[in-house]
Amino acid sequence: METKISHESALPDAAHSDPLLLGWMVGSPPPKEKLVRFSDGSMLKFPQNRWANNNYRSLVPTKDISRGSGLVAPLPRSDRPDLDAVSFVPIGSSEDMTWAESLSANYTDGIVVLHKGHIVYERYMGALDADTPHIAFSVTKSFIGTIAACLVHEGLLDDTASVAHYVPELEKSAFGDATVRQVMDMTTALQYSEVYTDPNAEIWAHARAGGLLPRGPDYQGPQSFYEFLQSVKKLGNHGESFAYKTINSDTLGWIIRRVTGQSMAQLLSQRIWSRLGAEHDAYITVDTEGTEFAGGGLNTCLRDLARFGELMRNDGCAMGQQVIPKAVIEDIRKGADPRKFAPAGYHTLPGWSYRNMWWISHNSHGAYMARGIHGQAIYIDPMAQMVITRYASHHIAGNLGIDPHSLPAYHAMALHLVKDRGY
Amino acid sequence: METKISHESALPDAAHSDPLLLGWMVGSPPPKEKLVRFSDGSMLKFPQNRWANNNYRSLVPTKDISRGSGLVAPLPRSDRPDLDAVSFVPIGSSEDMTWAESLSANYTDGIVVLHKGHIVYERYMGALDADTPHIAFSVTKSFIGTIAACLVHEGLLDDTASVAHYVPELEKSAFGDATVRQVMDMTTALQYSEVYTDPNAEIWAHARAGGLLPRGPDYQGPQSFYEFLQSVKKLGNHGESFAYKTINSDTLGWIIRRVTGQSMAQLLSQRIWSRLGAEHDAYITVDTEGTEFAGGGLNTCLRDLARFGELMRNDGCAMGQQVIPKAVIEDIRKGADPRKFAPAGYHTLPGWSYRNMWWISHNSHGAYMARGIHGQAIYIDPMAQMVITRYASHHIAGNLGIDPHSLPAYHAMALHLVKDRGY
Repeated sequence: METKISHESALPDAAHSDPLLLGWMVGSPPPKEKLVRFSDGSMLKFPQNRWANNNYRSLVPTKDISRGSGLVAPLPRSDRPDLDAVSFVPIGSSEDMTWAESLSANYTDGIVVLHKGHIVYERYMGALDADTPHIAFSVTKSFIGTIAACLVHEGLLDDTASVAHYVPELEKSAFGDATVRQVMDMTTALQYSEVYTDPNAEIWAHARAGGLLPRGPDYQGPQSFYEFLQSVKKLGNHGESFAYKTINSDTLGWIIRRVTGQSMAQLLSQRIWSRLGAEHDAYITVDTEGTEFAGGGLNTCLRDLARFGELMRNDGCAMGQQVIPKAVIEDIRKGADPRKFAPAGYHTLPGWSYRNMWWISHNSHGAYMARGIHGQAIYIDPMAQMVITRYASHHIAGNLGIDPHSLPAYHAMALHLVKDRGY
Repeated sequence: METKISHESALPDAAHSDPLLLGWMVGSPPPKEKLVRFSDGSMLKFPQNRWANNNYRSLVPTKDISRGSGLVAPLPRSDRPDLDAVSFVPIGSSEDMTWAESLSANYTDGIVVLHKGHIVYERYMGALDADTPHIAFSVTKSFIGTIAACLVHEGLLDDTASVAHYVPELEKSAFGDATVRQVMDMTTALQYSEVYTDPNAEIWAHARAGGLLPRGPDYQGPQSFYEFLQSVKKLGNHGESFAYKTINSDTLGWIIRRVTGQSMAQLLSQRIWSRLGAEHDAYITVDTEGTEFAGGGLNTCLRDLARFGELMRNDGCAMGQQVIPKAVIEDIRKGADPRKFAPAGYHTLPGWSYRNMWWISHNSHGAYMARGIHGQAIYIDPMAQMVITRYASHHIAGNLGIDPHSLPAYHAMALHLVKDRGY
């Protein structure tokens, strides 16, 4: 078969990297060249990741996030065949693209659009289906930030206190004199690179410590997330500007566990997943001490992620209950100071800010997002009464390469839907 | 605290080895001496295993076995407080023991007794509860054997054919010239020791190959279950006598996958778990090639295991459907030739046989069992219309040390219940 190449790189496009087409892990045993493993790092490589992202728990240890035994929240269906033709101009382009085309451009594995709580669009590609969990990567952070904001609201957590106040083990690390709020909004000053194309970036040491990368026989580094966090050095002054560093989420996870005495899996289940009307249990990856990867280990089915987005859109209500305090939602939507965000230089996110581990657009619709590497997203547009959730396995490890075909698509979809007064 | 010692060894008794009391994996992070890990082998050690056996998927990679979206099969409750006082004489003892005492003697984590489909007794101890999966260990084999027997019944698998006919990769191994039936009934002649107290026993190499034991930095051995199976040597003649070797189940798993083109997790879900009215999904451990541990990797909630026992007792019916053909159940109940079983020398199992990976008592009640290391059990007594399922974490790795306080207890319970005409 002739292999088509995407415009951006010498890698196969969405259709030609379809994991079912490529036959990863098929056979007993699969042929050597079709294996996707943890031990050789292949699970993180494109296009193998298009299989691995739907099969995380067959590759690494995980903990369940139970949906409990409650009712499933209905998501009424009002399929809208007109939506595929919604068009937009990608960032940096002069040519229109349709919604349908954007799905391939972004290596989408699955996408759900809710309008006024109805499923108006739902598609699955590759190895994903409605009943299979997919890794959410950094979308996880927005769940952790929301739980932290709830604890602040409840008075259990003081966001003006220092990290060392809650976690003395971090006193000598860069986090020691940061406030909880600085961690929650990622305005800490940390010597930690998250440039995935740099093999010496600290993100890799972090991943190895957390058991997310193979270690090699002579590995002498940190054995756990917590051990790694204690080694992080300061670089600059806390509170000056936003800098996206995953370790803030893991530190926040540590603070939350210390304050509540519960695991993150328990908290996610008790505070969110069991009160959402979820269809399926979720799960989260853990390190060798059982510590969940708060920075990116959550795996969910896509409709349940949409239910969480809808909960956020509905001021924290689901199943007739106030699950998240309205004040917490308002605090997230209000965002942080875009002037602290600007120096980070995200050219696709002009005027945005970062608050409680959510990305706030400050656009005229009040849209805000949870964002994960390789294109994971929860996009909430309050004005258009729209929630979009997407799982994807883009070959680019970072949203700056993915935003051009997705952010304008989401906004175009919102503009299209808001015109409709139908339901 | 004074530590009480059990009679059988210098190890703490059930109460003093309670994983909640000992505080395994509590804290963020847990203290070093309270960690239970895969990497240092502690998950397999007593008393840490009393925690690990309820938390397998937080320690190793696993695959889901979905219950699907069907109704839960009701298990009506008729709690019988009289059952704790049922008494019996342990094998090799002259003193009576009560049912209640036997639970501690056997380091029981949970036990369910069904009579005529009613839950008449249900207890959870240690870290287990009704909604937490526990590892079933070799009880797994009886599921695999049942699926194989179904495939034979359906004509998809010829049990008179050689293993090499289905899996040519095994032609040069000990399995090559064994028949499928010899594998199903474990009358193969294999150079493979399953004596857990012998550090050189092949079971350990098997476990390391399958990713169930840490490998050490210089490990050069087989990388997967399938690679290990190809290395097994013959010792004696196939078909002469029963010899319990876990690798038969893994070979049978290979045959089943080859014949069906499906994974064991898919088969277990499609053929059993989704048709049982299970309350919870189950899961199974996998090696680094994604191959499920057919010899012992199943994890289930205890009531769902009881539902499977009840399905067997009801001639293969559940939820008004014939899930397993009646002829398959009859073939299991009929058992194999006890004369081929006797040479194995199980003093607690006189006159028993082994058929389709089930243990058949040939007693007057027609009782038969699925049995797992450390005391896991499904005990089906057709005459008494009774099913007992138990999860346990005994410090003895083998049922011969556990049977004395359980087999006579099960039979005494059957005799007690059969007198009752109440429901």
